Amino acid sequence: MKHLIDPLDLSVEEIAELLDVASDIEKNPQKYAEVCRGKKLATLFYEPSTRTRLSFEAAMLNLGGSILGFSSADSSSASKGESVADTIRVVSCYADICAMRHPKEGAPKVASAYAGIPVINAGDGGHQHPTQTLTDLLTIRSLKGRLDHLTIGLCGDLKFGRTVHSLIKSLARYSDIRFVLISPEELRVPDYIREEVLRAKNIPFVEVERMEEVLPELDILYMTRVQRERFFNEEDYVRLKDSYILDRQKLSLASKEMFILHPLPRVNEISTEVDNDPRAAYFKQAQYGVYVRMALILKLLGLEVD
Amino acid sequence: MKHLIDPLDLSVEEIAELLDVASDIEKNPQKYAEVCRGKKLATLFYEPSTRTRLSFEAAMLNLGGSILGFSSADSSSASKGESVADTIRVVSCYADICAMRHPKEGAPKVASAYAGIPVINAGDGGHQHPTQTLTDLLTIRSLKGRLDHLTIGLCGDLKFGRTVHSLIKSLARYSDIRFVLISPEELRVPDYIREEVLRAKNIPFVEVERMEEVLPELDILYMTRVQRERFFNEEDYVRLKDSYILDRQKLSLASKEMFILHPLPRVNEISTEVDNDPRAAYFKQAQYGVYVRMALILKLLGLEVD
Amino acid sequence: MKHLIDPLDLSVEEIAELLDVASDIEKNPQKYAEVCRGKKLATLFYEPSTRTRLSFEAAMLNLGGSILGFSSADSSSASKGESVADTIRVVSCYADICAMRHPKEGAPKVASAYAGIPVINAGDGGHQHPTQTLTDLLTIRSLKGRLDHLTIGLCGDLKFGRTVHSLIKSLARYSDIRFVLISPEELRVPDYIREEVLRAKNIPFVEVERMEEVLPELDILYMTRVQRERFFNEEDYVRLKDSYILDRQKLSLASKEMFILHPLPRVNEISTEVDNDPRAAYFKQAQYGVYVRMALILKLLGLEVD
Repeated sequence: MKHLIDPLDLSVEEIAELLDVASDIEKNPQKYAEVCRGKKLATLFYEPSTRTRLSFEAAMLNLGGSILGFSSADSSSASKGESVADTIRVVSCYADICAMRHPKEGAPKVASAYAGIPVINAGDGGHQHPTQTLTDLLTIRSLKGRLDHLTIGLCGDLKFGRTVHSLIKSLARYSDIRFVLISPEELRVPDYIREEVLRAKNIPFVEVERMEEVLPELDILYMTRVQRERFFNEEDYVRLKDSYILDRQKLSLASKEMFILHPLPRVNEISTEVDNDPRAAYFKQAQYGVYVRMALILKLLGLEVD
Repeated sequence: MKHLIDPLDLSVEEIAELLDVASDIEKNPQKYAEVCRGKKLATLFYEPSTRTRLSFEAAMLNLGGSILGFSSADSSSASKGESVADTIRVVSCYADICAMRHPKEGAPKVASAYAGIPVINAGDGGHQHPTQTLTDLLTIRSLKGRLDHLTIGLCGDLKFGRTVHSLIKSLARYSDIRFVLISPEELRVPDYIREEVLRAKNIPFVEVERMEEVLPELDILYMTRVQRERFFNEEDYVRLKDSYILDRQKLSLASKEMFILHPLPRVNEISTEVDNDPRAAYFKQAQYGVYVRMALILKLLGLEVD
Repeated sequence: MKHLIDPLDLSVEEIAELLDVASDIEKNPQKYAEVCRGKKLATLFYEPSTRTRLSFEAAMLNLGGSILGFSSADSSSASKGESVADTIRVVSCYADICAMRHPKEGAPKVASAYAGIPVINAGDGGHQHPTQTLTDLLTIRSLKGRLDHLTIGLCGDLKFGRTVHSLIKSLARYSDIRFVLISPEELRVPDYIREEVLRAKNIPFVEVERMEEVLPELDILYMTRVQRERFFNEEDYVRLKDSYILDRQKLSLASKEMFILHPLPRVNEISTEVDNDPRAAYFKQAQYGVYVRMALILKLLGLEVD
């Protein structure tokens, strides 16, 4: 039985295989249209996340499978005091695979210990969101043709953004990666990322406050939302939220071959005037998210397509 | 790329074609049972509307397609501040066509400008609800055999009821239509309907306060609900809500060939004693709503069945 | 037109047939994988019940059918004042069969009087929950090989627990059944069960306060949750809720061939240390719940598989 709980559960080799399948799906979707016929995906979302849920559901439907589940804790048995361990054992009777979103860190890991079916962590609190990381990796590899020899800029809230931390840890496994960390002083990456990941592995990085000075050297600019709910007080939020807005003027400083990623939803950290620039890849990224989830479902169900 | 935002987006000829397909679906449902295999409908309901949502979902399932989506804004990314434009661009990666219900007027139109897939307006505030109008037209044509040469009675809240306004504007395009507008003084049709639609096109109409006096001359009686939420004060609501109740006694005044329509849900404006009368067509209307949505999905996806 | 509203709607012979089909489904799921292709199940849940809803949905999907519906009253037309009678008449245009959960006793029965499709009561208030009873019967018959000649222990809240009352009434129709009723004084079975079912039919039973003294003689131990919402005051709940907890020590007194059932969700009335005991059957029970719902859907739709 295999699960995906942490983005690092998969080796670099397994990720390469997964992304290969995802790329094949992109090229030949019809080949995969019936492979999950008769299989069911349960989406167990203890907190709402429409985008992630719909991405999983689209993935399963594209494979010819079916979907069932719930989209918020209100409509689940959780309100009757049931443990995640019991819920997953029951859901194992109803579905062949499940994607679980939970506000509590570690809940999907607990579930995987009791599940009779593969469990995919679809986000647990501020902790992990491995299919977002796989989406980011597929997007980068598809657009740049490689996951090594890259200068990666990460911009915005680098302190609380779990997608940023996961992406740094994942890319740190490839050779010749350099990070450019762009954030206000208050929202710099946590110490453990700086010390245990970057310095421990001798990975070159810089930390800067202004996007403009580093844009020309980036292969990828990964923008993130400044989430209101991460701030301790409203005043800080208001002061900082507009500091890191990518607009056409700033973008003019970047290379023609740089691509802009964003895990979405965006609020205003990328000006809409940038949307039609060929370097804007954040909506393509949503499409890659479906392909990589399709590949993941196939892998965890042990299904192969020739 | 085609969308359906306003009931008048479709020409009289296009409506005729659509209703022809809907009628063929009614007669030969099996012919259409697999035509959308592999296609996905996203139902994006920013406010709940079970009937409309389920009608769309039944339509897509009847065509062999799949469904995904959300049924209220609580469980959507809207709460994270995402724009409709961004949501639809992402959903365009997840589905082949979408039906959007939104409390804000114009939201589906905005969505259609950014969508990579056809957008169907499934109701935007008090504004438009084009698939209800298509349902009404199919019902009238199926029961009376024509959309011209008809005396149409509209009864109840004619001021705020968007289905009434859309139906008047749509039927005004056919020849020899006469309207009988039955409402309390306070809930008469808005001036722009009276002036810009009816008088501008020289369409005969009368405005009356009592149903009884006009019932004998009607081909169609379109009843509407007096919606509590449209009233400015509770007192007016209580005073008026029972004034326009169709019961067996009133119905005895009508022609044997008149049909009663209602967009549903009904509260008490049609007495349940009328339900078994052969002229009661409001539940058949719900069935026609599925057929016309099936025809619309096919049209917007560019699919044809021989 | 057939419905399932009350567990006793089905004769002993009909139940035997239904359980035979369910057992065949367990052995040969592939035989049934396409039999409902093109059919739709509507799940109309006016109050949340994830487990029951997902069990129905899994059942329909396993048969190759499709699902649509709502999972709480908030997202339904009920909030607009529509009657259950009107809702079911409309839903009859959208689906081929429906499962209805409603907080009001009798709502599914009302629905069945107006429905154009089979209605399954998926729980109405504290009243009936017939598919839970069928699940219990299938579980007992599958594990013990029979539904007669059994000593059945029922433990916990025997006063308010509708699953307990239904199970007693259903098993009372088989020969040589003996009941052991284990509960605190305050939560004993209601008088009508004791008088009109047990004494009227001369069925042997005992009522005890302590699980330990009777465990050795049981063939089945049916545990139930002490539901906080059934108590009139919090103090009673706190005092009683831990009195009837099955743990490994108590279980050591039971026969090796006894099986433990529970309608779930469990809170803490069965210690998790019991879960891996081969006699723990409450998660298998969830699986049997899917099989018996599959058999029921087939029966009500009049579908047979050779």
